[in-house]
Amino acid sequence: MPSTIGTALRVTVWGQSHSAAIGCVVEGLPAGYTIDQEALARFMARRAPGQDAWTTPRKEADRVIFLSGLNPAGETCGAPLALMIENTNTRSGDYDELRRIPRPGHADWTAQVKWGGHQDVAGGGHFSGRLTAPLCAAGGIAKQLLATRGVIVAAHLLEVAGVQDTRFSRQPDLLARQVEALGHATFPVIDRDASDAMLAEIERARRDLDSVGGVVECVVTGLPAGIGSPMFDGIESTIARAVFGIPAVKGLEFGSGFDAARRRGSDNNDPYGIKDGAVYPLTNNAGGNLGGITTGAPLVLRMAVKPTPSIARAQQSVDMIALEPATLEVRGRHDPCIAPRAVPVAEAVAALAVLDSWLAWPAQAATGERFA
Amino acid sequence: MPSTIGTALRVTVWGQSHSAAIGCVVEGLPAGYTIDQEALARFMARRAPGQDAWTTPRKEADRVIFLSGLNPAGETCGAPLALMIENTNTRSGDYDELRRIPRPGHADWTAQVKWGGHQDVAGGGHFSGRLTAPLCAAGGIAKQLLATRGVIVAAHLLEVAGVQDTRFSRQPDLLARQVEALGHATFPVIDRDASDAMLAEIERARRDLDSVGGVVECVVTGLPAGIGSPMFDGIESTIARAVFGIPAVKGLEFGSGFDAARRRGSDNNDPYGIKDGAVYPLTNNAGGNLGGITTGAPLVLRMAVKPTPSIARAQQSVDMIALEPATLEVRGRHDPCIAPRAVPVAEAVAALAVLDSWLAWPAQAATGERFA
Amino acid sequence: MPSTIGTALRVTVWGQSHSAAIGCVVEGLPAGYTIDQEALARFMARRAPGQDAWTTPRKEADRVIFLSGLNPAGETCGAPLALMIENTNTRSGDYDELRRIPRPGHADWTAQVKWGGHQDVAGGGHFSGRLTAPLCAAGGIAKQLLATRGVIVAAHLLEVAGVQDTRFSRQPDLLARQVEALGHATFPVIDRDASDAMLAEIERARRDLDSVGGVVECVVTGLPAGIGSPMFDGIESTIARAVFGIPAVKGLEFGSGFDAARRRGSDNNDPYGIKDGAVYPLTNNAGGNLGGITTGAPLVLRMAVKPTPSIARAQQSVDMIALEPATLEVRGRHDPCIAPRAVPVAEAVAALAVLDSWLAWPAQAATGERFA
Amino acid sequence: MPSTIGTALRVTVWGQSHSAAIGCVVEGLPAGYTIDQEALARFMARRAPGQDAWTTPRKEADRVIFLSGLNPAGETCGAPLALMIENTNTRSGDYDELRRIPRPGHADWTAQVKWGGHQDVAGGGHFSGRLTAPLCAAGGIAKQLLATRGVIVAAHLLEVAGVQDTRFSRQPDLLARQVEALGHATFPVIDRDASDAMLAEIERARRDLDSVGGVVECVVTGLPAGIGSPMFDGIESTIARAVFGIPAVKGLEFGSGFDAARRRGSDNNDPYGIKDGAVYPLTNNAGGNLGGITTGAPLVLRMAVKPTPSIARAQQSVDMIALEPATLEVRGRHDPCIAPRAVPVAEAVAALAVLDSWLAWPAQAATGERFA
Repeated sequence: MPSTIGTALRVTVWGQSHSAAIGCVVEGLPAGYTIDQEALARFMARRAPGQDAWTTPRKEADRVIFLSGLNPAGETCGAPLALMIENTNTRSGDYDELRRIPRPGHADWTAQVKWGGHQDVAGGGHFSGRLTAPLCAAGGIAKQLLATRGVIVAAHLLEVAGVQDTRFSRQPDLLARQVEALGHATFPVIDRDASDAMLAEIERARRDLDSVGGVVECVVTGLPAGIGSPMFDGIESTIARAVFGIPAVKGLEFGSGFDAARRRGSDNNDPYGIKDGAVYPLTNNAGGNLGGITTGAPLVLRMAVKPTPSIARAQQSVDMIALEPATLEVRGRHDPCIAPRAVPVAEAVAALAVLDSWLAWPAQAATGERFA
Repeated sequence: MPSTIGTALRVTVWGQSHSAAIGCVVEGLPAGYTIDQEALARFMARRAPGQDAWTTPRKEADRVIFLSGLNPAGETCGAPLALMIENTNTRSGDYDELRRIPRPGHADWTAQVKWGGHQDVAGGGHFSGRLTAPLCAAGGIAKQLLATRGVIVAAHLLEVAGVQDTRFSRQPDLLARQVEALGHATFPVIDRDASDAMLAEIERARRDLDSVGGVVECVVTGLPAGIGSPMFDGIESTIARAVFGIPAVKGLEFGSGFDAARRRGSDNNDPYGIKDGAVYPLTNNAGGNLGGITTGAPLVLRMAVKPTPSIARAQQSVDMIALEPATLEVRGRHDPCIAPRAVPVAEAVAALAVLDSWLAWPAQAATGERFA
Repeated sequence: MPSTIGTALRVTVWGQSHSAAIGCVVEGLPAGYTIDQEALARFMARRAPGQDAWTTPRKEADRVIFLSGLNPAGETCGAPLALMIENTNTRSGDYDELRRIPRPGHADWTAQVKWGGHQDVAGGGHFSGRLTAPLCAAGGIAKQLLATRGVIVAAHLLEVAGVQDTRFSRQPDLLARQVEALGHATFPVIDRDASDAMLAEIERARRDLDSVGGVVECVVTGLPAGIGSPMFDGIESTIARAVFGIPAVKGLEFGSGFDAARRRGSDNNDPYGIKDGAVYPLTNNAGGNLGGITTGAPLVLRMAVKPTPSIARAQQSVDMIALEPATLEVRGRHDPCIAPRAVPVAEAVAALAVLDSWLAWPAQAATGERFA
Repeated sequence: MPSTIGTALRVTVWGQSHSAAIGCVVEGLPAGYTIDQEALARFMARRAPGQDAWTTPRKEADRVIFLSGLNPAGETCGAPLALMIENTNTRSGDYDELRRIPRPGHADWTAQVKWGGHQDVAGGGHFSGRLTAPLCAAGGIAKQLLATRGVIVAAHLLEVAGVQDTRFSRQPDLLARQVEALGHATFPVIDRDASDAMLAEIERARRDLDSVGGVVECVVTGLPAGIGSPMFDGIESTIARAVFGIPAVKGLEFGSGFDAARRRGSDNNDPYGIKDGAVYPLTNNAGGNLGGITTGAPLVLRMAVKPTPSIARAQQSVDMIALEPATLEVRGRHDPCIAPRAVPVAEAVAALAVLDSWLAWPAQAATGERFA
C-alpha cells in the first residue's frame, strides 16, 4: 500500500501538510525495549526547519506524542506503536493558487490527475516533505533498537551544489571518529572547510531566488552477515523502495555505485580474508552486501536530492482548469536546499529497512535450526 | 517475499542455475490478451548468452513453455500464468570449489551464512543471472500488453567501460527513431561508432582475463499521467525494488538523477505548458513522474551494472570451512561484460513495474484512464 | 501484519485498552466522498457499552476524531485517513492480578508466552474488545461509501442463549422491511418476542454471575456479481480473515453453512433463472457467492460468539510466575453477553471486506462494474 | 493475491483443470530438510480420485515433479520450491455446454461475469477441485517439517449425510490412538460402524443421481504455546483464509465453535492448571488458541463441505449468452461426496497455516531477545 513499508517491521505514515496532525503506526517492534524520548527528540530536531540559516522559518514543534504501543513502564509492549505530531504552525494563505496552477517540480499536477480536485492541496497535502517527520520518528526508534546490538546508522552531506565533503572512510577507526564528530555537528558535514563552502553556496542560491541540490551518503556499521534475501527482498531492494519514497530523491547507489560501471572486475571485486577468525571482505566496493544479503562490512549508500522545487521567482506553468498558460510565483519561504534535512531522513529509512530485514530474516529461509 | 514482486500484477520467480528448470508464475494478468509467442522468443533471445562475441558460449535454449494461464484460444484467461524454461546445457564441473571457496563479488559467502551449507551452490543457485530469463519472459508479456495501449519500453547501453552512447532524445520524433533503430540492432547501442568502441573495450578486457561494467538507460513512452502513488508505492519505488533485485545492479537514477544534485532549481524544474489541449511538462528532468505519479512525459531511468565478478584470473579468497586464506581461480567461461544482457532485463522489469502500477491504480483511489 | 487487513482498502488498528487512545489508519478510500459524521456517531453508539441493561456500566465516549484524510470540504482526499478515539473512562484498579493470574478464556496466558511480561496487561491490552471501536469507525465509513452504490450491510442477533430470532428473509421485500425495522431497534433483534426472551436469558445469566453467547447473522444486499476472486482472495476468505480477528468469534458460515453438510446436492444447489434480463440464482444456499466471487444475490453469513469469558465468579487458574495453582475472581463489571455488541462489528468487517474486494476487483483482471 | 497464501511461508498455486499441468511455488521453506517423497506420494494418494468406490473414475496420476528448491542432496536449499503435476487424464468432451449454460453450485456464472468469456471453462478452470492437488503437495511437505518438531496434523470425516463419527478425543492418549488408526484407514473415519453407514449413504446418493455433504474435523497436536498474533494474523484468521479457499467449504469453527454460542461462560471457559511444570488449559473449548495465539493444547477445527454440485440429473439453469432459461444435464462422472477427499486437504492447509505462523512468529512482535 502506498503509505506503508516493511515486511516484519511495518510503518504506515499518515497525514497531510495541513491536516490536524501527522503521524505513523509501527507494527512489529519487538517488546521490551525502552525508547529514549529525549534522544528521539534530538534526532527529530535535526530534521526540523526554522532552526538554522539554511532552512525555512516555518517553525514546527515536531513533538512526538505516543498514543499506543508502550506499557506503563515505557517499554515497547508488542502492540502497534502509534505516534502523532500536531500541525501547529501553518500559513494557509501561502498556497491559494494551487488548485489551478501546478508548481513545477511538485506533485500538484499529478495529484490533480489522480484525484480530480479532491486532493488536499495545502502545503502539498500528503506529498509534503513534512511527512518525513513521522518517518524520522519511526526511524529514530529503529536506530535506538539497532544500537542495542551495536549497529550504528550515520549519514552526512557528501555534496552540495558541487562542493564535496570527505567520504566516509573505509578504515573502521577513522569511520568511527567521523561518525562521532557528525554527532556534534550543527551542519551534517565532516570537513569544516567543505561545510563553509556549502553554506556559502546555499546562501548564494537564496539570494538568487533559486535553490541547490545535494548528495547524502549513509553508512550502517556493525551489522552481522546474512541479513536480507536474494532477489526482491534483498537489503538493497528494501532500502531502495523506501528511499525513493522520500520526496526529492532522484538517485540511489550502493558501494562503488555508478562508478562500478567504469571499473574493471579485478578492481571492483572485494577479495576475502580472515579477520578475527571469521570471513570478511578486504575491501567494500559491494557496499556491504552481495546478492541482497549483508556481508558484515558496512552498508554504504548515496542518494541524490534534487534542488528544492519551490523557488521564489516566476516560473512558467498552466491553469489546470482553464487549460491555458499561466505564470506561477511561489510565495512563502522555502529551504534553498533540502539536502541537509534529508540527512536524518536517510538515517531513518536505512534504520527501518535494516531492522525490518533483520526481523524478517529467520522468516526468509533461515537455516533449519531457527524455525522455533 | 524475496522472489516475488508486484501488487496487482505479481511475479514469483523460481529456479536455481542447475535445477531441473527455472520459471515464474504471473498472477493478475488481465484476461483476453493473446501472447505473441514468436515475439516473446525474439525478446528472450536478446538476453540469451552464447550468441555473440561478447557473451558466454554456454548455450541456453531459453524456450518458454507455458504450463497454465491461457485458454484454448491462446489468450490470457485470468488464472495464474505459469511458465517454465528447462535447464539443458550445464557444466557442473565448473563449480566444484564453491562449497569451500567463495568467489569475490558473488553471493557464495553470504549464502553460506544464511543457509549454512544447504544452499545449492552450482552456478550460484538462485542468485544466478540465469534467473533473469523467466523475469524477461514475464516482462516480455507485460511489454506486449502495454504495447496494445501504445506504451513502448526500450533500453540501450548508455555506457560501457567509459565509452558513451548517445542518450535517448528528449525530442519525441527522434526518440521514436532511436527506439526503432534499436529494434534492429544486434548490439543494443544507438551510435554505431560507440558500439564499435564498446565492443573493443569488452574484447580488451577478455584478453586481460578481466571484465568491464556499464550503464543501461531505459525509457517508457506513451504512459498516461496519473499512474502510481505518493510515498512507497510510487512508480520510482516500484521500479527500484525490482531493479535492485537484478544481479549486478549497484545504482539507479531517474530523470536528471545524480546530475540534479548539481543543478539549480530554476534549471531542474520542468515548467508546464499546454500540448494537444492537455497539461504537459515542457522539459523532463523529472524523468516522467512527480511524487511517484506519472506526468505523461516518458519515464527515464539509468541503472549501473558492475563488471562481471567472475574473471579468469587468480583472486584472493578464503576457505570458508577451514577459515584460512585461499586462492581462487574461477574456471569456465564468463561474459566479460554483463551490461548488454541487462538491457532486455531492464525493459522487462520496467514493463512489469509499469503494468503493475497501472493495474493497481484504480485500487488506489484513482480517477482517469484505466488499463483493464 | 497482525493488526492490518485489506488489499486495496487497508485498515491498520492500533491501541490498547488503557493506552492514551485507540484508532486506525485507513488507506485506499476513494477520494471525493463526504463522511456523514453524525451517522457514523450513531453507528458507533450501537457498539458502545454503558447504554443499556445488557451492557457494562463503563462509559466510553467513543467520539471519533479525524486526524487526516479529509480535505477542507470534508471529503475523503485520497490520502490515508487516520482517526482516533480517546480512552477516557477507565478503572485501572480492576486489573491488578493480571500480571500473575491469567483469566480463563482471555489471552493473558498466550500474551505472556509471546511477550514475556512486557505486554500491556491492563484491560487485556491490544486484545481488548475495545479495539472493535476503531474497527467499527472504519467499517462505518465503508458502509457509507457502499450505500452510495445501493449496497446495504445489516446484521442482527440470530440467537442468544439458544433463543432464536427470525432469520433474514430470502424474500427481497421482506428482507428490506426487516433491515429497516432493525434500524429502529434498540436491541438488534427482528422479532419482539425473541428480543424479550433473549434479554431475560441475559439477565438470568447476570444474576447467576455467569455469561451467555450468541450467533450474529449478517447480510449484504445490492452487490453486483463478479466481485472477489477464486482461491484465497475470495469474498469468503477475505471476510473470514477479518471475522476471526474479532475477539470471541469461534465460528463462521456462509449461506446454508454447516447445514449444507446435511443436504443433498439437488436441494443445496441454487438453480439459475433470468430476472430483469440478467442471470440470477433462484435460491441462495450459496450465500451470495460461488468460487469466491459474488453472484448478485445477498451475501449471508453467521458468526458464533462465545459467552463472555469474564464472569464474576471464582475460576480455577494458575500463578504464571510461581507456576502453581491459583483461584481467580474477576472483579469489575462485564457484559454478560458480548453478542449484541458484536452486531455492529459484524457489519463493519463485512463492509470493509466487501469494499476492499470491490476496489481490488479491477486489479484482478475483472470486466464489469467498478466501484471507483 | 488470489492464488497465494502465507506470510513467511508463501504458497502460490497455479493451473487449470485442463492446462498442461498444475502446480505451486513454495517460498520460505527453511533449508536443510529432506523431503520424504514416498511419504508425500502416499499423502497425495489419499486425495486422488479413481481409487475407491466413493470417488470418480477419472484417474489422475498426481505424481509430483520437483522443478526447483532442492539441492543435489535432496534437501530444501532455501530457494523457492516449485513443483508440478501433469494433467494427463482428461475428458474434454464432458464440458462442452459450459460456455453457455452455467452449472448450479459451480463458479461458471461468476467466472463469466469476471472474465467475460475469456476464462478457461474446461473442468471449471482454475476453480476446479483438482487445484487442491498442488495444495496438498505443499501441505504434505509442511506436515513433514512440522513432524520433525513433534507436531502432528490429522483429520477425519466427522459427519457425512448426517451420520456421525466419534469426535477426536480430548484425552491425549486416546487421541494419539485415533490418529494412528486413521493412518491405516482406507476411508478416513475412526469408528468402523460409522464408516459403513457413511459409505451406504454415499452409495444411496449415487443411485439417486444426487450427492451428499459432510463435516471434516482436523486436529493439530504438539504445537508450543505462543504461535500466532492478536487480530488479523491470529492462527484462526490464517487458517480461515486458507480453508475458505478450498472449493465447497461453507463453514468453519474452532473448539466448541457454534456450540459455544449456546453455553454459559462458566462451562465454556477453559480453566488453567500446571502440567509438567508448565501452564496448561485443563479443558480445550478454545480449540487450542486464545486471542489468535496458541495455548499448547491441540488446535481443533471443523469445516463444513457442501454436497457435490455436479449431479447427474437435470437442473434448471440459463443460457448466459441468449439470456433465457435452459436445462442443464451434467455429463461425466462426479464424486457423490467430496468430503472424503477434503480430509487430506484440510490437513494440508492446516499444516501450511501452522508452519507459516510458526515461521512468522519472531517476526510478529517476538520477545526482545529474538531479533537476531
